[in-house]
Amino acid sequence: MLLELPQREIGGVVPPLSELQQMVNHCRKNNIKLHLDGARLLEVLPYYEKSAAEVSALFDSVYLSFYKGVGGIAGAILAGDESFIEEAKIWKRRFGGDLISLYPYIIPADYYYEKRKNKMKRYYEISRYFAERFNQINGLYTKPKVPQSNMFHLYFEQGIEEIEQLLKLVYEECGVGITASIQKKDNDYFAEISFGDAVTVIPETVIEKMFLTIKQNR
Amino acid sequence: MLLELPQREIGGVVPPLSELQQMVNHCRKNNIKLHLDGARLLEVLPYYEKSAAEVSALFDSVYLSFYKGVGGIAGAILAGDESFIEEAKIWKRRFGGDLISLYPYIIPADYYYEKRKNKMKRYYEISRYFAERFNQINGLYTKPKVPQSNMFHLYFEQGIEEIEQLLKLVYEECGVGITASIQKKDNDYFAEISFGDAVTVIPETVIEKMFLTIKQNR
Repeated sequence: MLLELPQREIGGVVPPLSELQQMVNHCRKNNIKLHLDGARLLEVLPYYEKSAAEVSALFDSVYLSFYKGVGGIAGAILAGDESFIEEAKIWKRRFGGDLISLYPYIIPADYYYEKRKNKMKRYYEISRYFAERFNQINGLYTKPKVPQSNMFHLYFEQGIEEIEQLLKLVYEECGVGITASIQKKDNDYFAEISFGDAVTVIPETVIEKMFLTIKQNR
Repeated sequence: MLLELPQREIGGVVPPLSELQQMVNHCRKNNIKLHLDGARLLEVLPYYEKSAAEVSALFDSVYLSFYKGVGGIAGAILAGDESFIEEAKIWKRRFGGDLISLYPYIIPADYYYEKRKNKMKRYYEISRYFAERFNQINGLYTKPKVPQSNMFHLYFEQGIEEIEQLLKLVYEECGVGITASIQKKDNDYFAEISFGDAVTVIPETVIEKMFLTIKQNR
C-alpha cells in the first residue's frame, strides 16, 4: 500500500497521527507492505511535530523528493531495508536512473537539503499566515482552511477570466506573481500555492499592497 | 539492424564507405530498418570526409551522444522520421528520460556542441600524430595502426604491473595522465585513448618529455 504524506491533490493535508497509526497497525497485522510517498515529507513534519525518522519508522519504505520544498533540480531518495534497496537499484537502472553523470542533480540536492531542511517550520508558519489573510478577503477561501504544510489551495469564487485579470493586475501593480497555473475542480477554480525562500525576500509593504489590491479589485 | 560508427570496442574504426553502402543496400532491399549508433559520429566524419547529414541519410534512425567528443555531461539526440520519433518519445518517458528538469544536461550539450562540432578534424589529426609517435616506441603499438577517429587502443606488450609502473612514472615525471583504465584482451593489455580539447593545452615540450620518458623506461 502506498500513502502520500502530505496529500498534494487535496491541498497538502495529512491524516491525524492516531489515524495514521491505525493504518500502519492494519497493514502490519495483514502483512501488507506500506510505502510512504513522502515527496513533501519534510514540509509536514512541523505540523506532526515529529522527526523524519519517527514518521519513516511507520513505513517499510520511504521516498523523499529533492525538488519540492528542498528546491533541488530533480531527483529523490529512496529508503528501505537492504534487500528492498538492492532490488530497487536494479529497477533504478532499468528505468534510466543511472545516467553516466548525475552530479548536476546530486550537488544541488545536497546543497539545498542542508540549506532548507530546518526551514520547513518557517515555510509552514508563512503558509498559515497567508491562508489566514486570504480567508479574510470576501470571496476568497483556502483548502484546508488552516494549512498543515507549506501549501494550500486558494479558491477564488470567480470565473477564469476574472481570476486571470485579477492576478495580472496584482502582478503589474505589486510585482508579485501569485500563481502560474489555475486549476478547475468541479465548477470552482483554484491555485496551488506553496511557500519557500522566495516569499521571504518580498518586503512586508509589498505583501500588504498585494492583499489590498486583491481586496479592492474583486 | 544496428550499426555503430565508429566502433569503439575495436579502437574507433569504421567500414569503408563502399562496404557501408553495400550494407545499406542490403537492408533496403530486404526491408530491414537500419539504426546508426552514432554516439561518436562527429568524431569519424573527418576520416569519411562526409557531413553528418550525408552519413545519416543512409540510415532510418540515428543516435548521437552529447558526452563523447562533444563533451557534455550526459544525454543524446535521436533522429528519425516523424512516426518513429513520436513512438520513441513514449519510450523515452517509460525509461525515465523525462525528468522534471533537464536543463543541466541541455545547456552544456548545446554549449559544447557549438564549441566542438568543428574541432573533430583537429582531434582526428592529433590522434593520428600520437598513434604514429607511440608506434615508433619499441614494444608499443596502436590498434588501428592509423586511427580513423579521435581514438585508438594503445597496446603495451608488458604485464599489468610494468604498465602501471610506467604510467605512474610518466604521471609523476611529466604531469601527464595517459589513461585511468587498463583493459585486457586475450593476453594483451591496452588503454583506450581518445583526444579532445584537454590535450591541446599540454605544451609541446611536455609531450616530448612524455614520449622520451616512456621510451627510456621500458
